[in-house]
Amino acid sequence: MIKVIELKRTVTDSNDRDAECLRCELTERGIFLLNLMSAPGSGKTTLLSRTITDLVGKARIGVMEADIASDVDALRINALGAESIQVHTDGMCHMDAGMTRNGLMGLEGDLDIVFLENIGNLICPAEFDTGAHRNMMILSLPEGDDKPLKYPLMFQKCDALIITKMDTAPYFDFDLEATKERVRALNPAISIFPLSAKTGMGMNEWENWLLTEWEKQKNA
Amino acid sequence: MIKVIELKRTVTDSNDRDAECLRCELTERGIFLLNLMSAPGSGKTTLLSRTITDLVGKARIGVMEADIASDVDALRINALGAESIQVHTDGMCHMDAGMTRNGLMGLEGDLDIVFLENIGNLICPAEFDTGAHRNMMILSLPEGDDKPLKYPLMFQKCDALIITKMDTAPYFDFDLEATKERVRALNPAISIFPLSAKTGMGMNEWENWLLTEWEKQKNA
Repeated sequence: MIKVIELKRTVTDSNDRDAECLRCELTERGIFLLNLMSAPGSGKTTLLSRTITDLVGKARIGVMEADIASDVDALRINALGAESIQVHTDGMCHMDAGMTRNGLMGLEGDLDIVFLENIGNLICPAEFDTGAHRNMMILSLPEGDDKPLKYPLMFQKCDALIITKMDTAPYFDFDLEATKERVRALNPAISIFPLSAKTGMGMNEWENWLLTEWEKQKNA
Repeated sequence: MIKVIELKRTVTDSNDRDAECLRCELTERGIFLLNLMSAPGSGKTTLLSRTITDLVGKARIGVMEADIASDVDALRINALGAESIQVHTDGMCHMDAGMTRNGLMGLEGDLDIVFLENIGNLICPAEFDTGAHRNMMILSLPEGDDKPLKYPLMFQKCDALIITKMDTAPYFDFDLEATKERVRALNPAISIFPLSAKTGMGMNEWENWLLTEWEKQKNA
């Protein structure tokens, strides 16, 4: 049975301040929070499933699944034996810091790393600080290499970009080098990880980055 | 040189009334307006490019491309010799009727059918009537068959669903029949067209629907 939290819009005029407070509290509690943003169907849950399995024994990972409706993602994470909570956003197209705080209350046990799987949307989530320590974006190869041109803010706001479904490269016209150039023109400091959660290609590089950033956060 | 219109949020508290007026005016002018909604990277522009080429001599088609930034989509349509206008939404995640009206002013010449390529987003655009005669959604096969569970409102609001990139079916786990069932549970009246704009498979069925609906509108 998946827990589902029905969130309402949090009443505050200062999301940025709320986000700073939440980040501070999570740091105190030793939880490293990552905000995962992407378009619908980019493979966030598949990526997380593989990451959780790969990192068993290295980090206790929890996942907060944010969706308009359904609990299919939380069920998938739950089936791995990992701690997960499904939150519904009352039709809202993004998560803010207050919603993130309320959702986190549903996660139990001692956790090292928590992923917020934000609503599938490349626009609105980029505008709201959730209180996460790192922001990440997932672009799936089938979506095309023109996305940095169309959704620049999302690429600017993220610390890492993961390009998923790389195993399908033979079947699409996708220029990886052009994508990297377009992304770096918007955000020179971003880390970029092309990978396939299906075949495992590139997973190591991404997981090493995750563990390194977690380590940095513990020592911050 | 692509024309770009920078739209601002239209100041109105009655989008539904604006949308009704715009629909009425377009009917008077003999323009059939279709609102195309989808996630980013679903293949809207590729579908429209093939449709425009296939229907040369049958219908004069124009396209309004709505994006946060860039003019890559309008350039692609323009290269076909079709009338197109790029509109930028000032960071907004959807088009409303007032914005649609302002964007339409940039389209020149006598047109029979106009497509509004709405912002790539499965959430917010579903909540705003643009004044279109028909609403359509594009789901690309790589996005997965769970989308009707996660974004029910979008599927409920549409007259037609096009499932694109069907040529990539061998490389993904996508259950077409399950998708149809989930969609019809939300919206029994919706027309569903699985197709590949790359290979041409299924294009006829979709184009016949388009011409039939246009005919119905002319006789309405």
